[in-house]
Amino acid sequence: MSFSKMSKLGSYFIEFISPTSWHVRGVRKIYYSEESKYQRIDVVEFEDLGRGLVLDGKVQSALYDEFIYHESLVHPALIAHGKPERVLIIGGGEGATAREALKHKSVREVIMVDLDEAVVNASKKYLPEMGADAFSDPRFKLVVGDGRKYVEAAWGEFDAIIIDATDPMEGGPASLLYTVEFYRAVKNAMRPGGVMVTQAANTSDALDVMASIHKTISTVFKVTRPYSAYVTSYDAPWGFIFASDSADPKAIPPSDVDSKIAANVKGSLKYYDGETHVHMFSLPKNVREAFASAKRIATDREPPSVRLPSEHPLG
Amino acid sequence: MSFSKMSKLGSYFIEFISPTSWHVRGVRKIYYSEESKYQRIDVVEFEDLGRGLVLDGKVQSALYDEFIYHESLVHPALIAHGKPERVLIIGGGEGATAREALKHKSVREVIMVDLDEAVVNASKKYLPEMGADAFSDPRFKLVVGDGRKYVEAAWGEFDAIIIDATDPMEGGPASLLYTVEFYRAVKNAMRPGGVMVTQAANTSDALDVMASIHKTISTVFKVTRPYSAYVTSYDAPWGFIFASDSADPKAIPPSDVDSKIAANVKGSLKYYDGETHVHMFSLPKNVREAFASAKRIATDREPPSVRLPSEHPLG
Amino acid sequence: MSFSKMSKLGSYFIEFISPTSWHVRGVRKIYYSEESKYQRIDVVEFEDLGRGLVLDGKVQSALYDEFIYHESLVHPALIAHGKPERVLIIGGGEGATAREALKHKSVREVIMVDLDEAVVNASKKYLPEMGADAFSDPRFKLVVGDGRKYVEAAWGEFDAIIIDATDPMEGGPASLLYTVEFYRAVKNAMRPGGVMVTQAANTSDALDVMASIHKTISTVFKVTRPYSAYVTSYDAPWGFIFASDSADPKAIPPSDVDSKIAANVKGSLKYYDGETHVHMFSLPKNVREAFASAKRIATDREPPSVRLPSEHPLG
Amino acid sequence: MSFSKMSKLGSYFIEFISPTSWHVRGVRKIYYSEESKYQRIDVVEFEDLGRGLVLDGKVQSALYDEFIYHESLVHPALIAHGKPERVLIIGGGEGATAREALKHKSVREVIMVDLDEAVVNASKKYLPEMGADAFSDPRFKLVVGDGRKYVEAAWGEFDAIIIDATDPMEGGPASLLYTVEFYRAVKNAMRPGGVMVTQAANTSDALDVMASIHKTISTVFKVTRPYSAYVTSYDAPWGFIFASDSADPKAIPPSDVDSKIAANVKGSLKYYDGETHVHMFSLPKNVREAFASAKRIATDREPPSVRLPSEHPLG
Repeated sequence: MSFSKMSKLGSYFIEFISPTSWHVRGVRKIYYSEESKYQRIDVVEFEDLGRGLVLDGKVQSALYDEFIYHESLVHPALIAHGKPERVLIIGGGEGATAREALKHKSVREVIMVDLDEAVVNASKKYLPEMGADAFSDPRFKLVVGDGRKYVEAAWGEFDAIIIDATDPMEGGPASLLYTVEFYRAVKNAMRPGGVMVTQAANTSDALDVMASIHKTISTVFKVTRPYSAYVTSYDAPWGFIFASDSADPKAIPPSDVDSKIAANVKGSLKYYDGETHVHMFSLPKNVREAFASAKRIATDREPPSVRLPSEHPLG
Repeated sequence: MSFSKMSKLGSYFIEFISPTSWHVRGVRKIYYSEESKYQRIDVVEFEDLGRGLVLDGKVQSALYDEFIYHESLVHPALIAHGKPERVLIIGGGEGATAREALKHKSVREVIMVDLDEAVVNASKKYLPEMGADAFSDPRFKLVVGDGRKYVEAAWGEFDAIIIDATDPMEGGPASLLYTVEFYRAVKNAMRPGGVMVTQAANTSDALDVMASIHKTISTVFKVTRPYSAYVTSYDAPWGFIFASDSADPKAIPPSDVDSKIAANVKGSLKYYDGETHVHMFSLPKNVREAFASAKRIATDREPPSVRLPSEHPLG
Repeated sequence: MSFSKMSKLGSYFIEFISPTSWHVRGVRKIYYSEESKYQRIDVVEFEDLGRGLVLDGKVQSALYDEFIYHESLVHPALIAHGKPERVLIIGGGEGATAREALKHKSVREVIMVDLDEAVVNASKKYLPEMGADAFSDPRFKLVVGDGRKYVEAAWGEFDAIIIDATDPMEGGPASLLYTVEFYRAVKNAMRPGGVMVTQAANTSDALDVMASIHKTISTVFKVTRPYSAYVTSYDAPWGFIFASDSADPKAIPPSDVDSKIAANVKGSLKYYDGETHVHMFSLPKNVREAFASAKRIATDREPPSVRLPSEHPLG
Repeated sequence: MSFSKMSKLGSYFIEFISPTSWHVRGVRKIYYSEESKYQRIDVVEFEDLGRGLVLDGKVQSALYDEFIYHESLVHPALIAHGKPERVLIIGGGEGATAREALKHKSVREVIMVDLDEAVVNASKKYLPEMGADAFSDPRFKLVVGDGRKYVEAAWGEFDAIIIDATDPMEGGPASLLYTVEFYRAVKNAMRPGGVMVTQAANTSDALDVMASIHKTISTVFKVTRPYSAYVTSYDAPWGFIFASDSADPKAIPPSDVDSKIAANVKGSLKYYDGETHVHMFSLPKNVREAFASAKRIATDREPPSVRLPSEHPLG
């Protein structure tokens, strides 16, 4: 790309990591740009990441590497469970989390509860690759509504609960999807042998948020396993936390992961396999130390919060 | 606006003045973003300039101050003519140039020749304030086509010819609207007493381009008058060149400008009047010296060119 | 400049006009970067403007076009006075304002009062072209100290008082150099026939600040004349206000300006002459209307303020 | 940090990953900014990364997380060797690579060959934490010169050769530190049982470069092991390639890594330990597939090249 082409482009997206750290990305085309009841929604074609979804100025997922995020979120938990039948997804508007869950042969029902129907509709129209066949799969059901309330109303119903919400921001609607009260409700909503997994900030500039979420979950479940996967679209090793009262993904040898994928998963995976599993669940020393020293348990009265950019520890 | 709001915005427009001088503007909303046969067209709501039209990454006009550009382009020439009846506009897709021309009571016909119908249609739909009633005025006629060819086919037909084209860029279609051959055709297309005016880069970083255009025109017409008006949307005093074989706007005293406006122009003007006229036609010493020393006459074989950003004299 | 060179550069200066309007400039070299007692001071080589001084992130002057600002600030007032002998400069740390004042043959003493000696020293060392011979001229005297207090202590001493301070910012030290109490002290500090001039924001995004400064001064002096000069380094037509109880620059015909320059000024000027004078003192209609409708008189209790970027009218 | 503080800052560093993907970082202070014989060198205080070294616009290392890069580069190779005595470092100007190597009790000599003495001197003065005691350690020796030539002149001399050069860029001096001819020379320069390690681009946007380097090395050594460590300063999982004819770090169980560190390394490590080792040497599926399918062997005639930004696969 010559400078002259760059100059004609004009349109850019700036993601502010903090007031003094920004990622600027060229935008080739804007497909959709609206303010919904809950947030600003943009679907754009990034020069470097391909088509992607942006909510309130934060890249949510892009065709270039959404497979890394979605495979990492879904498969370790479902493989650890062994035979999930009923899966609940909180958030996940693009449909890609459902797409991955539906690859598991044992799954008979996937219920996705998302607050913002506008995100689902924009994704269906402008990012059909994300949901792929999920939206038309007879095992799939969309509920537009409050994920927290949905979980609280469910008792002993799900084998796996996957929390694919936006980051907890102060005053944001997703804050209450990261508190001890919520995780207790998640546990109540599970069938025996149930597993949960949540996206959980990252191991780079938001490591303390991830550590606090981990600490909070560990007061509710017997087994909690933080893990990470680098996603170029997020410029960071993205964080996830698995939890259950019995299953433990870290104890599964890589060869078993490979054979379970072969037996239970329809279609091929691009990111996740036995060795990837080992990579994700082995965390570097400094990251583990942050988990070990975390003390803060997030509650509905004091939810966790990805720092406002103005309070960034380095900013 | 708090930093947190700024952070949620995400969408920005970057106008590259040179590789090392850029203007970054926040975008509140994107109304239209398409690639036409000729150029990339964006209609966006800038945070600082309001709704505006962008072609190939360059701001063309914005509601905040388009009146300055369009009044400066149109009125000095029509006032200098005295009683224009038939007006030709080359370019002018937004319709605002036509809007100003149609304010002159003597005008019986305005023909606007624009290459790119997509610009006209996007302006009508998303920038209706620009054209206002021009598009439905019975005196107005739109021709979609090549302005150069249109002028070449016209003989002794127009009292005023207004060239409202994009900047001459190397290889761009507008280059041939700034050459000596074109200006000769413009002269041929005029009725006796006819006047022309063209936008002509600016007196800041493109002063030498403006000087070259002025030099070129001065080989064809007896009277040529460069003038300028600062337009915030362009970050510069925008340049214009008036030419004719008889009329001379600089010779009109400011009080006469005021009385001619009162007599001939319907509706009120926000920028142009007698004192503004004096301001525009009196140029600073360093600017006048650049005109005096310009030597290059632009021809079809060697058209003028707003430097590629990579050849910027300061860059 | 190829993209590859641009990529190697790395260093940029961003001037925030508002949270959503920024000018980004490449920096070839950094000569000086310190935090003084009063402000952050940077002397850098801009790719587009040459070497320049930056205070608290705002470009103050650059070699590319500082002559436009400094000639516009100094000469109209001294020409209007006719025979200035004692000149007081408030601010002016680079020395360029003194340099221009010392060109007037009648001038016998120039006293420059600047708050921040670090600015003066950095300018002498890294921007010697700005002060030129001023700092070593026997007629020149530097006082490091508070300009407001200096003016208040002076009674009937100066023929011309030139205020070359930074913009009035909320809580900034320069705020009290733009209030009615200050202008009264300026008047007291003048000899009979004395004149003053102040820089005064701009006629673009800070037009209302300029109008308020003008309104304030007009309550103290019989003659006040706002004028402007476009400075590329500031991306705007910069504003100035002349005031006196007798002299009136706008009444001087351009030919008289030229002959007075020839008689009184040593060395040649690059920007200012008779026609430039007409250009500067004739203001566009919308700018004049802003002056006419200004009501706010700035006082020590309610000083004027260039809006915090977060309160920008367009932002 | 409020917007007002951000606005006063002014100074930013932009790292261009491609023409349409940039990381912008606020700079609190500039310590050093010079053009050496070989490159532009800046030492700055980043708002988000602390003090750091920038060469030709690319962040080389910053106090915030240089320990991750330098521990990852040095320790796996030295631990895999078992008892390194003579260590050669190519590049490594900051001194931090030497600092880590000197922590190994068995090491009796570290020779560091860096092309640009200006980098070494700026690091010593402005980044003393990087070299720590290395520069004054009696076992340490600095050679200013061409690393490639130094290696070619050495026969059977080193237990470990650590290549800490800048990325291979087209026409850059480091290109010839990534070719098959160079790796053959490295092998010749080793004692029996010798090991080498090189930094090798990253597993994100430069995965194909890393794969090509790996492919090239694998034609020279019996054992080659690519691995990665996420470094916030680089926005990516940084790549390294270990090679030897006998030692294999991937075969060392994590508990052995821990006991070897305890026995052989003086002082504590912040990033590297047994579990980190597992994390680094287990690579995700898509990354492994890129290594498996790499075909290009880099030679002196066709060296590898981190794509010019203008040739970025996504740009």
